[in-house]
Amino acid sequence: MEHVINPRLVAESLADLWTPRVIGEVDDAYVKVAKVQGTLTWHAHDDEDELFFVLRGSLKIEMEQQTVCLNEGEMFVVPKGVRHNPIAEDECWILLIERKSTLHTGNTVSEKTCPIEQQIKSD
Amino acid sequence: MEHVINPRLVAESLADLWTPRVIGEVDDAYVKVAKVQGTLTWHAHDDEDELFFVLRGSLKIEMEQQTVCLNEGEMFVVPKGVRHNPIAEDECWILLIERKSTLHTGNTVSEKTCPIEQQIKSD
Repeated sequence: MEHVINPRLVAESLADLWTPRVIGEVDDAYVKVAKVQGTLTWHAHDDEDELFFVLRGSLKIEMEQQTVCLNEGEMFVVPKGVRHNPIAEDECWILLIERKSTLHTGNTVSEKTCPIEQQIKSD
Repeated sequence: MEHVINPRLVAESLADLWTPRVIGEVDDAYVKVAKVQGTLTWHAHDDEDELFFVLRGSLKIEMEQQTVCLNEGEMFVVPKGVRHNPIAEDECWILLIERKSTLHTGNTVSEKTCPIEQQIKSD
């Protein structure tokens, strides 16, 4: 049986920053939430688009050709292959939609890189 | 160049009920918003899951095995093959994530059925 999910409540409950939590799947895509603050790392996903939707706070996404600022309730899709670097000055809760094959920090590995097994983990 | 989108503002601007508007794509999935009130029609998508996220108001989704009630900020994924019937007592704005191949009312055709060409249409 499927369940109703409140993404904001799940995001609020997360203990660790930059550690997405899978909250649903739509065919070959995962729906995730994350609590973020500070910056992740410059990276790209060569084969996957990535949707960011801000549940609370605001998020800046630096890219080589432009920088976008998302406020609460706004979304942006980073196209496949575009190097990007998400930054949140203050704590921010985001919802992500991305194909299941998407690696957290693409082909870049940093101390913040979170493997998918950890993203699926339930409490 | 990609753009920042506010799904609530797009939903608010829609003139017609039960007429989804494509606002983005993530690989082989469309992100859509719709303004709904009343009921659509019982239908299923044999090969595609469908995510409903309530941007404003509340939505009931009847299924043969259960009925779920989504309030603002809540989401639910109707699994592929599950017959469902969305109902909104009052005006409700929703965000949808579904594969591009998804037909509005599955294999059921009603007077409310909205072809994908109309969903992609911009003002």
